[in-house]
Amino acid sequence: MYLSNFVATGLRNLSKVQISLSSELNIIEGNNAAGKSSLLEGIGLLVSGRSFRTTKNNQIISHNQKEISLFAQFDDSTKIGVSYGHTKSSRKIRLNGNNLNALSKMASIFPVQTLSPESYHLIDSGPGQRRKHLDWLLFHVEHSYKSDWQSFNKVLKQRNSFLRALNGTKSHLDDFLLNSWNLKFVELADVINSKRKNLLSQLLDELRIVLDGMDLCLEGVISVEYHSGNGKTNLVDKLHESLYLDVSRGSTSFGPHKADVKLKIGGRDVKDVLSRGQKKMLINALYLSQTTLLKKLSGKDSLFIIDDFSSELDSVNQLQLVLALKDQKNVQVFISCLDSLVLKPLIKEYNNVKMFHVKHGVISEVTLPT
Amino acid sequence: MYLSNFVATGLRNLSKVQISLSSELNIIEGNNAAGKSSLLEGIGLLVSGRSFRTTKNNQIISHNQKEISLFAQFDDSTKIGVSYGHTKSSRKIRLNGNNLNALSKMASIFPVQTLSPESYHLIDSGPGQRRKHLDWLLFHVEHSYKSDWQSFNKVLKQRNSFLRALNGTKSHLDDFLLNSWNLKFVELADVINSKRKNLLSQLLDELRIVLDGMDLCLEGVISVEYHSGNGKTNLVDKLHESLYLDVSRGSTSFGPHKADVKLKIGGRDVKDVLSRGQKKMLINALYLSQTTLLKKLSGKDSLFIIDDFSSELDSVNQLQLVLALKDQKNVQVFISCLDSLVLKPLIKEYNNVKMFHVKHGVISEVTLPT
Repeated sequence: MYLSNFVATGLRNLSKVQISLSSELNIIEGNNAAGKSSLLEGIGLLVSGRSFRTTKNNQIISHNQKEISLFAQFDDSTKIGVSYGHTKSSRKIRLNGNNLNALSKMASIFPVQTLSPESYHLIDSGPGQRRKHLDWLLFHVEHSYKSDWQSFNKVLKQRNSFLRALNGTKSHLDDFLLNSWNLKFVELADVINSKRKNLLSQLLDELRIVLDGMDLCLEGVISVEYHSGNGKTNLVDKLHESLYLDVSRGSTSFGPHKADVKLKIGGRDVKDVLSRGQKKMLINALYLSQTTLLKKLSGKDSLFIIDDFSSELDSVNQLQLVLALKDQKNVQVFISCLDSLVLKPLIKEYNNVKMFHVKHGVISEVTLPT
Repeated sequence: MYLSNFVATGLRNLSKVQISLSSELNIIEGNNAAGKSSLLEGIGLLVSGRSFRTTKNNQIISHNQKEISLFAQFDDSTKIGVSYGHTKSSRKIRLNGNNLNALSKMASIFPVQTLSPESYHLIDSGPGQRRKHLDWLLFHVEHSYKSDWQSFNKVLKQRNSFLRALNGTKSHLDDFLLNSWNLKFVELADVINSKRKNLLSQLLDELRIVLDGMDLCLEGVISVEYHSGNGKTNLVDKLHESLYLDVSRGSTSFGPHKADVKLKIGGRDVKDVLSRGQKKMLINALYLSQTTLLKKLSGKDSLFIIDDFSSELDSVNQLQLVLALKDQKNVQVFISCLDSLVLKPLIKEYNNVKMFHVKHGVISEVTLPT
């Protein structure tokens, strides 16, 4: 499955976009501020339902324009479209000509993975971003996870409301009622935790395969630790221990909503050990291993976006990334770069490559460098 | 003033470092993970008292080593040294052979400005980082600011303790006592706000001069807005309005500790308008204008670190940065890069350039490319 056509009006600094795409590799080149990231942002937003650059969707509308309109067609004739203006209610989502209420239906068709300078925060950021990332992957590969996750979050919210209703004092606490919340809470937490652990173990297997094909000079073996958010004891005990804290805060301090995933190397946190370039290559490898897992577990192809390909990578690592990319099957790739020369070895490996040049917001298809 | 010699043992992945430095331009080149950033981190940490890569100082100690030791000498024979092991109490700071208790004395000698991929978060991050940055500049250029800031923070803490002692209810509130805190609070807030505003206006003048020398294709005039953290009314009224909120939170919701600085272009937030490359160049210009201001207002030279010079910048912007750098007087520059070829036009402009190659943690001085 791949995106065959993309049309956009009102997209940031870009003039009207109307391009037909390669099923395999699409290269977007141009100077700073030409509009490369905006094009990738538009494609990603349409297919995944969110921008990798901003959470404020109306920022994506061209300055002085009333609305944005994004439309694309897949090779199997599936058509998707999104349009919106500056008000929330103005948003329209269409799938094959029918209106949709939620973006999630569209986002489930074709997983989008975006490697941008921001993706590398996954290692250095707090646990929230890593939890979200893992859950995103689970939503795609395990159909039942969405309802597990919704059930858990419902119980979490109800338990928190119950705690807040106590107004910071345990004197009105109904033990029976609390225990019944705890029971449901722990039961659903176990489901969430075991699905997450199981996926992580499969992901680690794939990651090690990708890393074996690269030579990153890592001093030690990569491992993944899932911290369930229960502290060191089991969750039932932890909920009892933290009762006073939970009542005073009016929220639940322990559980899978506080979980974390730690990437380690030789037992030490990669965050503290690896250089910036190594972290970047590790994240690249992680994303590549996800595309394999997505295909294996859900049969889904991926749309793979690399914004600013060469930044911070030396020539050896650039080549390693190129070689790892060419081994990817079932992936439609979009790469932006300042200079496409670095991609020459990659271009050779593909049968079907398109290249676009962006200048002052105007996109034109160009012939490949020979 | 400049750093003439630097010695380090136990610094991350680097073997013992012992180098003599150029008073003008020092170039550190090498592949990913060679140790370039570690060298710059060590120099920055010694001179400024903090690392630009981590807040956990013991992470900077080489794996399997007991301690780190950093030592440097300035051209005027001033000597500084820091050593520490894995415990907090093990830290020793020396200035000209005498032990010091605090790093701040050392940090005030020679302002360190570091441009790394992390510096660019200044635009996209929350207000806290921008406030800290502005205060850092004020500490350097205005001697009395440190004590103003300390006085304000003391009163803020006292007011918060007073609020917390009310235990979330206004029933025990002593209006007279609160009003006396408010009076002091507002008086010191005014001092802080007016010094910050004054500095920002001078900084904007310098920034515009630097930007005039560059051609960033910015659509509109750059401006700076200081948001004092008072909301739209004056602070006295705001403290009264927010009394219920403050008592229930046990903290002060309005005042200069909540201030923000917004960079705008043509009246819109640069965060939402500029491309990643443009943001990077704007931050580069901001740091360059700070060195001029530091010299003008405090007579201080700066140590200027650029970690990963070329990443994300097209060749036009790289050249613009090079040309802007060469206009800088009173600045000792350290630049790391994957390939020093891009710096050729810069090297030409300096009389005194040293170049170091880093490979697998070993640093060697090399001859300049011709």
